[in-house]
Amino acid sequence: MSISQLDAFRGGDKLVRIVGHRGARGLMPENTLIGFEWTLSMGIEALEFDVLLTKDEVPVIVHNHHLTASTTRQPDGQWLPDLEPAIAQLTYEEICAYDVGGIDSNSEYGMRFPEQMFLSNIKVPRLADLLRLITQPRFSRAVLMLEIKSDPHATDPKLTRTRTVEKVVQDVRNTGLSHRTILHSFDWEILAECQRIAPDIPTSFLTQLPENDDHVGEDSSSNFGKHLQNAASIPDLVAQAGGQLWCPYIKDLAAKDIERAHQLGLLVITWTANDINDIENAIDLGVDGIVSDYPGRVQHALLSRGYAWMPKPLENQEEFPRFPGAAAL
Amino acid sequence: MSISQLDAFRGGDKLVRIVGHRGARGLMPENTLIGFEWTLSMGIEALEFDVLLTKDEVPVIVHNHHLTASTTRQPDGQWLPDLEPAIAQLTYEEICAYDVGGIDSNSEYGMRFPEQMFLSNIKVPRLADLLRLITQPRFSRAVLMLEIKSDPHATDPKLTRTRTVEKVVQDVRNTGLSHRTILHSFDWEILAECQRIAPDIPTSFLTQLPENDDHVGEDSSSNFGKHLQNAASIPDLVAQAGGQLWCPYIKDLAAKDIERAHQLGLLVITWTANDINDIENAIDLGVDGIVSDYPGRVQHALLSRGYAWMPKPLENQEEFPRFPGAAAL
Repeated sequence: MSISQLDAFRGGDKLVRIVGHRGARGLMPENTLIGFEWTLSMGIEALEFDVLLTKDEVPVIVHNHHLTASTTRQPDGQWLPDLEPAIAQLTYEEICAYDVGGIDSNSEYGMRFPEQMFLSNIKVPRLADLLRLITQPRFSRAVLMLEIKSDPHATDPKLTRTRTVEKVVQDVRNTGLSHRTILHSFDWEILAECQRIAPDIPTSFLTQLPENDDHVGEDSSSNFGKHLQNAASIPDLVAQAGGQLWCPYIKDLAAKDIERAHQLGLLVITWTANDINDIENAIDLGVDGIVSDYPGRVQHALLSRGYAWMPKPLENQEEFPRFPGAAAL
Repeated sequence: MSISQLDAFRGGDKLVRIVGHRGARGLMPENTLIGFEWTLSMGIEALEFDVLLTKDEVPVIVHNHHLTASTTRQPDGQWLPDLEPAIAQLTYEEICAYDVGGIDSNSEYGMRFPEQMFLSNIKVPRLADLLRLITQPRFSRAVLMLEIKSDPHATDPKLTRTRTVEKVVQDVRNTGLSHRTILHSFDWEILAECQRIAPDIPTSFLTQLPENDDHVGEDSSSNFGKHLQNAASIPDLVAQAGGQLWCPYIKDLAAKDIERAHQLGLLVITWTANDINDIENAIDLGVDGIVSDYPGRVQHALLSRGYAWMPKPLENQEEFPRFPGAAAL
């Protein structure tokens, strides 16, 4: 079983990993190829992002089950109206007509990311596009935390799960990147399907306690709650379910759970830590890694303690990728 | 007289220009080639940066007269001690031994930029490196707000001014970029020298009222104060001195001065607006452009009012440069 990708998510002595959330949503348009490329170019090796199937069963990288009004412009340049078309009802070609390079400054969601650069003519990427990007030699260290979303509106949820996982795994295998991918979901039935279809790819279990669900403008779906009532702990549930990573929400972190996860051999990657107090708390509690929209903030929190986000000494970073143009000068 | 670069700094109806300060210091290491390239790749056409001469008279892009402890690592990877070597006492080759890709998270200066990405093996760029970068066809719209710093410790200040301007102008002319450059300084004697040596290149006059000087960790030098006492207004002084741009500090902005500047045919570019209230105030007051460490913040402030930072409709931005890697996919 290939588990080399797990090493990229493993913390250690004065070592906490940084995972770029949807690329680096605080600075760059989320879930876009240009955002992913920039994040990797900054030496952040691990990317978290979200995959759904289009009507024609193309795995695309987009967070919500619909094109989101506050991040999507129509071909006429106007923001999408609130009647948001479902990804599952659009072909990939139809989705390509929309521009996801910007965020609406006047939307509640947009106000959460005031530094995000505003670009135009940026399409929803296919999973295959990102996979191809990281096959470039300059990104040979990149690893993917590939979140598969369940579709709450699917007429046949079981079939939809199976088809989604099959298509995702097919894309990953086509580019030979199984050993650099982790399959990640809130939907534990999807993760069971991942283990059945791709037993060689590690699975990562997202959790969020219902009382802490406070995100504006974002779909989320979690079904671990029904297992929880009789369990010793959430990490025990994850281990029993065959997971290698446990990804608790930042507000749910508790020292005893992290300790238990480590006893069970799980890696603990928390999401999404943007506030400096949350970041500091996660480091204090000994997580393996931190998913953040602001990788620079996590870098500085780590550096200020003499910690690193990669196991190599900082002075040996010369092999990290740079923008091609800058490198050529 | 070629003045096409002035058009890139001219505001208009619902149009306010964005100038990336030292690249985009809020997000990327300041005054580095990778920071400049990123800023331009984000569709921010105007760059502000600082030029000094090394001991061997190479124009290099660095803000302070010395290598700054909080942004400079030695070859051994350690932060520079407080005994900071002067740029004028180091050859370009000696300066290349230092790494300016990061900011010290524990320094007062570093704490001002908590989102800045931390990179390694980044050298102080030569002016010639940046000039070469923007000769690339994908950056054909880029314009430079080239600040020349005066050296307060020069043994022969007049000679130092002349040599600095000569060397800077020589680099600009060597790359054929006079028509895309503006010469910019706090030191009005330097600007007089610019006008003598390169009368075809517009000059830009920086001002900061002494009572508002509040920057931590940065050299600044301004000598317009001695002219001010008998003048009608600062813009009048700038116009009398032959300037085309007036660049007042953000805290010094006053409606009557901006109005007077426009009456005199000056463009008004204010610096450095990072706080959203400062940005909003500058837009309200009708400046032509805003220098910011956070170009995304200015973009969102403009977008939320239906303003733009470029005269073209947003839907026609397809010609703006992208990362080569992303464009190729």
